[in-house]
Amino acid sequence: MKLHGYFRSSASYRVRIALNLKGLTAEHLAHHLRKGEQRAPTYLAINPQGLVPTLQGDHGAVLTQSLAIIEWLDETHPAPPLLPADPLRRARIRAFAQVLACDTHPVQNLKILARLRELGLPEQQVTEWAAWANREGLSACEKLIANEPGPFCFGAAPTIADLCLVPQLANARRFGVDLAAYPRLLAAEAAAKNLKAFADAAPERQADAE
Amino acid sequence: MKLHGYFRSSASYRVRIALNLKGLTAEHLAHHLRKGEQRAPTYLAINPQGLVPTLQGDHGAVLTQSLAIIEWLDETHPAPPLLPADPLRRARIRAFAQVLACDTHPVQNLKILARLRELGLPEQQVTEWAAWANREGLSACEKLIANEPGPFCFGAAPTIADLCLVPQLANARRFGVDLAAYPRLLAAEAAAKNLKAFADAAPERQADAE
Repeated sequence: MKLHGYFRSSASYRVRIALNLKGLTAEHLAHHLRKGEQRAPTYLAINPQGLVPTLQGDHGAVLTQSLAIIEWLDETHPAPPLLPADPLRRARIRAFAQVLACDTHPVQNLKILARLRELGLPEQQVTEWAAWANREGLSACEKLIANEPGPFCFGAAPTIADLCLVPQLANARRFGVDLAAYPRLLAAEAAAKNLKAFADAAPERQADAE
Repeated sequence: MKLHGYFRSSASYRVRIALNLKGLTAEHLAHHLRKGEQRAPTYLAINPQGLVPTLQGDHGAVLTQSLAIIEWLDETHPAPPLLPADPLRRARIRAFAQVLACDTHPVQNLKILARLRELGLPEQQVTEWAAWANREGLSACEKLIANEPGPFCFGAAPTIADLCLVPQLANARRFGVDLAAYPRLLAAEAAAKNLKAFADAAPERQADAE
């Protein structure tokens, strides 16, 4: 398999964690987002959004959108599971993941912040926008798992919730968000970071890290 | 079941279509987003994001995030299926849905546009932002299904892709997007709108429509 990504892309980071948890290896193909490499015609031919990640399977399959990729990995490589069997638990875990993957990350990604700069917003307001988006999402997530036992977001093993949380917290720190208000999220992050699958997927451990 | 929503919310609209396709009825509880009713403490207690929709099941289950709700409905009420059995097809359909549900709709929803106004952007730039977000997402979606036979987004029956597409096209029209560049999407929309499940879910058919 080949994973098209970028070291600092949190959507790529989610998929790296999933591959590691499943014990799968992939060739990592870096596309430098700040240099616009994701808009090269050869890349747009496999991912018309011009976003990372894209996963190319061994038999010509091309998969886009991190959560779709992760659910595909979970369906085709079931052990260890990234979602439990119970439909209601699955729904709660997916909802947590989607708070981050739908309502948080896309609102503060590189493309959106570049657009805000084009509209003339000063850098301080751009950063504050990103921090605000992170606070909104993380506040909701903290409440969603307030009564979950841990140590991970939803119990004794990592799920797609943790795969979304850990990269998002890295973003939040980059934008200067005070994380003290989210003790439950920080505890889940600490449990995740103890796992080699998460540690090896960290941005600073990637070959294209700067 | 009870569905907390708002007639014009495209995330609520997706869930209304899913309920109708499954032949399920729900009591519809309207929360007027422009009046801020989604931020009432009683509502935040069940949905800490203060967003619609929320689905309350018959046995106390509380579900949030439209795609998580729809997958739960599909897992607990399998007929007719909203996703096929093949993992690769599921991944492609989910990716299409996520282009809209992650990268398009959350970037142009009421909350984001309100924030842009707070930052001092004139109304014309706010509308252009929303139109831009729609064009970006719809352009990618048009390419993702260019080789799919139709009449729906992915074949002979509606899937979660169509559930996301039809409400997004309604948004795009509201923001003045020229849809002529998306003939494949318009054809899928036309097929969907022929179905009573889609027609009955339309914003203008809801009790809280203005």
